[in-house]
Amino acid sequence: MTAVQPKSMDEIMSLCKRRGFVYPASEIYGGINGFWDYGPLGAQLKKNLRDAWWQDVVMNPCWGRSGPDGNPVEIVPVDTCIIQNPRVWEASGHLAGFNDPRVDCRETKNRYRADHLLVLVHPQDLAAPCVAFLEGNEDAARVRLEKLLRPGRGSISAGGSISAGQNVSAAGDVIAGDTISAGLNITAGRDVSAGKRLESADYIVVSMMDFPEERIGQVFGPDAKTMGTLTEPRPFNLMFPTVIGATGDPEADKAYLRPETAQGIFVQFKNVVDTTRVGVPFGIAQTGKAFRNEVTPRNFTFRSREFEQMEIEFFCHPDTAKEWYAFWRDWRMEWWKSLGLAGDNLILREHDRDELAHYAKEGAGTSDVEYRFPFTAPGFGELEGIAHRTDFDLRRHAEHSGLGDKLKYFDPTRGEPAPNGQPKGERYFPHVIEPSAGLDRGVLAALCEAYTPDPERPSGVFMKFHPRLSPIKAGVFPLVKKDGMPEKAHALATTLRKKFGHLGTIEMDEKQSIGKRYARMDEAGCPFCFTIDSDTLADDTVTVRHRDTLAQERIAMDAVPAFLGEKLGI
Amino acid sequence: MTAVQPKSMDEIMSLCKRRGFVYPASEIYGGINGFWDYGPLGAQLKKNLRDAWWQDVVMNPCWGRSGPDGNPVEIVPVDTCIIQNPRVWEASGHLAGFNDPRVDCRETKNRYRADHLLVLVHPQDLAAPCVAFLEGNEDAARVRLEKLLRPGRGSISAGGSISAGQNVSAAGDVIAGDTISAGLNITAGRDVSAGKRLESADYIVVSMMDFPEERIGQVFGPDAKTMGTLTEPRPFNLMFPTVIGATGDPEADKAYLRPETAQGIFVQFKNVVDTTRVGVPFGIAQTGKAFRNEVTPRNFTFRSREFEQMEIEFFCHPDTAKEWYAFWRDWRMEWWKSLGLAGDNLILREHDRDELAHYAKEGAGTSDVEYRFPFTAPGFGELEGIAHRTDFDLRRHAEHSGLGDKLKYFDPTRGEPAPNGQPKGERYFPHVIEPSAGLDRGVLAALCEAYTPDPERPSGVFMKFHPRLSPIKAGVFPLVKKDGMPEKAHALATTLRKKFGHLGTIEMDEKQSIGKRYARMDEAGCPFCFTIDSDTLADDTVTVRHRDTLAQERIAMDAVPAFLGEKLGI
Repeated sequence: MTAVQPKSMDEIMSLCKRRGFVYPASEIYGGINGFWDYGPLGAQLKKNLRDAWWQDVVMNPCWGRSGPDGNPVEIVPVDTCIIQNPRVWEASGHLAGFNDPRVDCRETKNRYRADHLLVLVHPQDLAAPCVAFLEGNEDAARVRLEKLLRPGRGSISAGGSISAGQNVSAAGDVIAGDTISAGLNITAGRDVSAGKRLESADYIVVSMMDFPEERIGQVFGPDAKTMGTLTEPRPFNLMFPTVIGATGDPEADKAYLRPETAQGIFVQFKNVVDTTRVGVPFGIAQTGKAFRNEVTPRNFTFRSREFEQMEIEFFCHPDTAKEWYAFWRDWRMEWWKSLGLAGDNLILREHDRDELAHYAKEGAGTSDVEYRFPFTAPGFGELEGIAHRTDFDLRRHAEHSGLGDKLKYFDPTRGEPAPNGQPKGERYFPHVIEPSAGLDRGVLAALCEAYTPDPERPSGVFMKFHPRLSPIKAGVFPLVKKDGMPEKAHALATTLRKKFGHLGTIEMDEKQSIGKRYARMDEAGCPFCFTIDSDTLADDTVTVRHRDTLAQERIAMDAVPAFLGEKLGI
Repeated sequence: MTAVQPKSMDEIMSLCKRRGFVYPASEIYGGINGFWDYGPLGAQLKKNLRDAWWQDVVMNPCWGRSGPDGNPVEIVPVDTCIIQNPRVWEASGHLAGFNDPRVDCRETKNRYRADHLLVLVHPQDLAAPCVAFLEGNEDAARVRLEKLLRPGRGSISAGGSISAGQNVSAAGDVIAGDTISAGLNITAGRDVSAGKRLESADYIVVSMMDFPEERIGQVFGPDAKTMGTLTEPRPFNLMFPTVIGATGDPEADKAYLRPETAQGIFVQFKNVVDTTRVGVPFGIAQTGKAFRNEVTPRNFTFRSREFEQMEIEFFCHPDTAKEWYAFWRDWRMEWWKSLGLAGDNLILREHDRDELAHYAKEGAGTSDVEYRFPFTAPGFGELEGIAHRTDFDLRRHAEHSGLGDKLKYFDPTRGEPAPNGQPKGERYFPHVIEPSAGLDRGVLAALCEAYTPDPERPSGVFMKFHPRLSPIKAGVFPLVKKDGMPEKAHALATTLRKKFGHLGTIEMDEKQSIGKRYARMDEAGCPFCFTIDSDTLADDTVTVRHRDTLAQERIAMDAVPAFLGEKLGI
């Protein structure tokens, strides 16, 4: 792992707001924690990523490549509801088990995710006060504890800033260290992956998850003035509740917003098999919103309460699950790479056995495609999880719906040969490989990867989006607003819109200096600008400006569509 | 209005299920009233309609046509959250005013929308029992009342079936008639539009909305065994409630699922103006899910509780609102026509003054693009409403957010001339023209319009989708599964997928007889099939089969991409 200077998340967020990629939701009402809206550039960027996925997953699965069985990969789409019969969530296990451990503060009424909460503890004095803090706030907590324990000494700064839980993968946000004195698990800092232990000054850091119950009364909450106001960690269901029509009884009519799009696919598995000509192995894919009532939403759009997923449930015979798992894992990694997320910032990480979700314990494995976000660096955050879910979900729905074996798939290509030489067929619950991607996280990774400070440019920064993702595909600019240049520019923009308008915006702008227009295009991540000037009027050529290199070249105006088509891979 | 034999909604719904267009949501758990999932063909059909809208509204607004001001129409997209700060709904008026009148049955616990409920009443005997029924069930209600009033006579059938409330436009589902004896408003049947009054046998039909309070105890509920179990109509808020994180207090943390996507646009109006280069007149557009807790969801996907909207809020100077209203109204009608919804089944209907929503009372008007669905025929149901919302919403948000005049738009192109000859600028709340379309209703109209019974075909029916909407753009079939035909077919399918795969599926199928494959394509609405046979092996030509005419012609295999491109308008 090479040492990388992380980009500034504050600067990226500032550009996102300033250029209309992402706004806080309900901002004029003070916002709403955990919800973000996409502005004009962000909405198109997000659509481009969703469309790229749809194109490569649904329309031309895996770029036309064959699966491990030698046949083309088959995928069909569905579009299922956010609100389903609540029994779906009973069956899936979300109603009973989709909980995060939560800690409440009786003083401030704030609520924290216990596995995001760390406690600064005196290593020898078991009766001393402790200070709870959220990741990233260790320095302040250290100063606070110092004051509490040695009120005479005044504040000192920490002996070395260690920050816990840099790896924010799905499985858990805290990396636990070795057990030491006083029965506490130390949560080690960012060097744990390198096997090196930091000197932790005077105090030790413990995850709230491992903090002894009997000492909770000694803890100061992160925002509390008095000691002992935090509750013990207790489970908190992440599903958003709602109430649907009919009788109006809030308990009888309780329903939930889906916490994942996957279950809509499992519930319609039988309908899809019965009403289309797909046969196992095949996949069902969908994109759509999902909702999780995160206790502590954070890191911009990375952990928000409303988000969009792009999920494939790929059904295969149990005997072939291992190969399909490897196939999907590798292709999904290639796919993200193809969108410009490459190099050291993207990794494929196989989960350890003890990280696996309940449904994946018996499976071939789970992997994450992870991106090194500025707020996770030098660690990584999950973009997509590829999990072998076994037949867990179909079996649960078979049981809870009462359909039982009727939910099994009848495979006419398998089984003993019948007297006529044809196979007798086999009835089984297919195994599932699930590549489940976060659309908002993909957009966030694209934004972070594209963000490129460049002091040489007037804008000071440019967005180096892969052309497939760029919200604006081309700028068409008359150098000045006269001499017929606007008309020529308008004609070229119209031609380009007809040919490439389904892929992104063709920006036509005749106001301000050309330098300001280029600077705006740099911040918007537009890969090519075509400028109409006085030479154009004489010889029908235009200047092409390349965003990444700032190179300018002259090409014939009627060669522009072919030029752009080649660059966009059309 | 020509007399049209309506298609059978039951047959259309049956095909939708059988071919994988639409499934009941959570069907394996007995479903969930008012929620529908899209199967593989339906998901792609819906995406195609959404993409067509995005292309023609956002990417190339109004097909490149100029607005009434002579300039190209400018539209930018956003993508805002389903859950917003609840103060948004206070400001928009939805919290206080977004109510449907509801009637509960104390016996059955069923709930009815009062404006969908009709009452069959004896015209002279004010003390006689009455029978409530839902539209479409008048015959049964008549038999029931007959038995109640004349138990000796046995059941007789109605003197003429009149069914009320055929026009299910947004403004209200019941057409009220003249006032007659006993202070009741008669709700007249389908001939009211022609100005003709039906003979209504012995009884009269009254909307529950107009039914006298003091007589509610005489009414039998539609499903009740005892008299007097219905409540009086009372308002019922249509927003789905939920509770978001933080303190966990169900009242303090109450939030709502958006009942329309429009408010997300109004709330971000200032951000869009501040962070992009748009200037009034311009529009902001988005597509997305919205939720309404309908008391009585019905008519398949027409009135469902979870649905998707495609909304434009077009901001213009108040003085120009009238022209922009007319412009949008007319273009939106053209747009729906361009997708094959044409002829007598599509109308543009200007609302009467008394139908107008509160925000539109002062405006230039409201129009609906309406389609004649089988369940509304001979009436029409709304696909899209085009409303002049005035500056109602921006003013309300200015007031409720405390931003006041800061939410006004500063227009540098207007105002008195300054000493330098340039305009001084004008600060104002723009007026809004809102073309708001229902995506699911558009899909349903496309399904109904396409459904074409044809006893000559093996399938007995074909789906005559506009090629732009067809989920499957082409079928590529080897006549038999040997002699290298599958390989040639596979190569052609790959070529077509590369070129047209972003528009829809290219189906490649080598199983079953060619007749069965054609029949399947007819039911899926695939406009063209290309068949590889033994001649192909000799001269590289293929057979093109046209879905609508059943004509077959022979063309060169390498001419297929150009042929299909022309038909798809690429």
